[in-house]
Amino acid sequence: MTTQHRGRQSICFASPPSIKAAASVVGKKEGEGPLKTYFDLVSQDTKFAQSSWEKAENQMQKLALQTVLKKASLTNQDLDVIFSGDLLNQCIGSNFSLRGTGIPALGLYGACSTMAESLLMASAAISGGYAACAAALTSSHFASSERQYRFPLGYGGQRTPTAQWTVTGSGAIVLQAEGRGPYITGATVGTIVDKGIKDANNMGAAMAPAAYETIRAHFDDFSLAPEDYDLIVTGDLGKLGKELVIELFRRDGVSIASRYDDCGTMIYDLKKQDVHCGGSGCGCSAVVLCGFLLRQMALRKLNRVLFCGTGALLSPVSTQQGESVPSVCHAVSIRSERS
Amino acid sequence: MTTQHRGRQSICFASPPSIKAAASVVGKKEGEGPLKTYFDLVSQDTKFAQSSWEKAENQMQKLALQTVLKKASLTNQDLDVIFSGDLLNQCIGSNFSLRGTGIPALGLYGACSTMAESLLMASAAISGGYAACAAALTSSHFASSERQYRFPLGYGGQRTPTAQWTVTGSGAIVLQAEGRGPYITGATVGTIVDKGIKDANNMGAAMAPAAYETIRAHFDDFSLAPEDYDLIVTGDLGKLGKELVIELFRRDGVSIASRYDDCGTMIYDLKKQDVHCGGSGCGCSAVVLCGFLLRQMALRKLNRVLFCGTGALLSPVSTQQGESVPSVCHAVSIRSERS
Repeated sequence: MTTQHRGRQSICFASPPSIKAAASVVGKKEGEGPLKTYFDLVSQDTKFAQSSWEKAENQMQKLALQTVLKKASLTNQDLDVIFSGDLLNQCIGSNFSLRGTGIPALGLYGACSTMAESLLMASAAISGGYAACAAALTSSHFASSERQYRFPLGYGGQRTPTAQWTVTGSGAIVLQAEGRGPYITGATVGTIVDKGIKDANNMGAAMAPAAYETIRAHFDDFSLAPEDYDLIVTGDLGKLGKELVIELFRRDGVSIASRYDDCGTMIYDLKKQDVHCGGSGCGCSAVVLCGFLLRQMALRKLNRVLFCGTGALLSPVSTQQGESVPSVCHAVSIRSERS
Repeated sequence: MTTQHRGRQSICFASPPSIKAAASVVGKKEGEGPLKTYFDLVSQDTKFAQSSWEKAENQMQKLALQTVLKKASLTNQDLDVIFSGDLLNQCIGSNFSLRGTGIPALGLYGACSTMAESLLMASAAISGGYAACAAALTSSHFASSERQYRFPLGYGGQRTPTAQWTVTGSGAIVLQAEGRGPYITGATVGTIVDKGIKDANNMGAAMAPAAYETIRAHFDDFSLAPEDYDLIVTGDLGKLGKELVIELFRRDGVSIASRYDDCGTMIYDLKKQDVHCGGSGCGCSAVVLCGFLLRQMALRKLNRVLFCGTGALLSPVSTQQGESVPSVCHAVSIRSERS
């Protein structure tokens, strides 16, 4: 078998899989933000005509999957495997949306890093010869997340300045062995980093060191620098976390600011949409990638993107027990050309 | 790249990874069951000297990881990647036990199918050339599960006849590209099956159709019959679910009873240990595999085992919303010889 690893943490795909199609479905608030024209579906009804927020999230995932398959001119039967996960307890967002589809399904949990993790896994499945066609799918919903992680919506809890707003959105990508790109050329798997941040409303600060360490490892393993990418994008550290990543690199003497952005700061208008530090949730980086970024790649406005999914691996129980917030970041290299 | 898939759902590893070592850590009740002599560590203190049940589960996973690395004469630094997951909300069992280890970590959620899913993923990572050394890790804890899924322990809720008892246990396996076996020769990825069972205390009935469909697909994809395995073992359907799997195959004219068993019925003495239909939880099939089954393979009492992890993908919220129980089963073929 061809070696496909580079350094300890990184993967260099021998046969870079090609993105056949991507789809993004979002709610009303996301449809009012700066990226509104890039999403496939914007629902004015954030309940998606369902009887609960959790069922709304299922419906949103189903719509994302249907849309990506339609765009790829494929059916459920064409998918050899799907990798999916979400923020809901026991990942019911994904598991209920995939039941009865007949698609071989492998469940993931990577919190808000799930789009990157599922894309990494789907790429590995194809380049490893395990599948000819694979999909990556994830979602988050503001209302189902808010009541699970924080307070019931009706309580009207005051949000702290470092809080982020969970994106209502679902993203899906279909990959194939052959195609016209863009291609997934490599990836770096993160380690679980915990620098002791105990404020569950400051996830940007908790996740920034994980993002830094994974991007650092990616540069080291592939002998790359920020200039080798048109865009390095984390998802989703928000405004504060983004500043921390820039600062952590500055301490190494590396300036990444001109090539770096964060999905959490891109999806909303931070001045007008009252989202404090920006967007978060599995759906945030998913719809920014599937909607905006891949469109920019199709237009060749971006040709080399390092997509870095960041996840805060806390739970309400761990926070109540006084624990800090472990975090992870997985990075996926997406390029217009195969090499 | 060499093709490593067989049929739509199955994988045939071109370079079957070798199990370097396995470890099992259990609690007091499991240490009083019929498999008690096979576990590496039995703790009389089910709190593992921690201040909460969740921290106890972390400690148990840490012990399983330390033990398997010690048995393999390896350190954290030798692992290229670890695949792990558990039943706790946001998988805090795994994420907190791996923080600070420096091991590249990919999180999974497959409910009680996690040992099979993680073993499948770790094997795919090695045979795909992504890693030279990979680990699979999972756990469950009776007390952390009971209060999350059902009632606070102090409430003393009456259990229904079809209920299963969540195993307090953690299992870990280290795989390498080269070695003396046993080998992971193939696997079958499950689809998410839901036949409408709404009783969250009858998970055996909910999961049995998923087990049947995956084993059926495995036989079809590899042109195999029950006689081609010394043991087909599900984990963990319990007594009722096991009978249902036998019945589902009988309807196809296939008799699997003489080659078939279930980890949930093996780990406890169902007559004496008051566990109703048997054991459950990610830890159940994990410790039966890592403790008992791999020992039988080392002794060559078993040479061909089909290990079928079964997961009920419900959450307390989905049950409260009147939903049925989606289930999945992933099967992994373990053999003493490479082919």
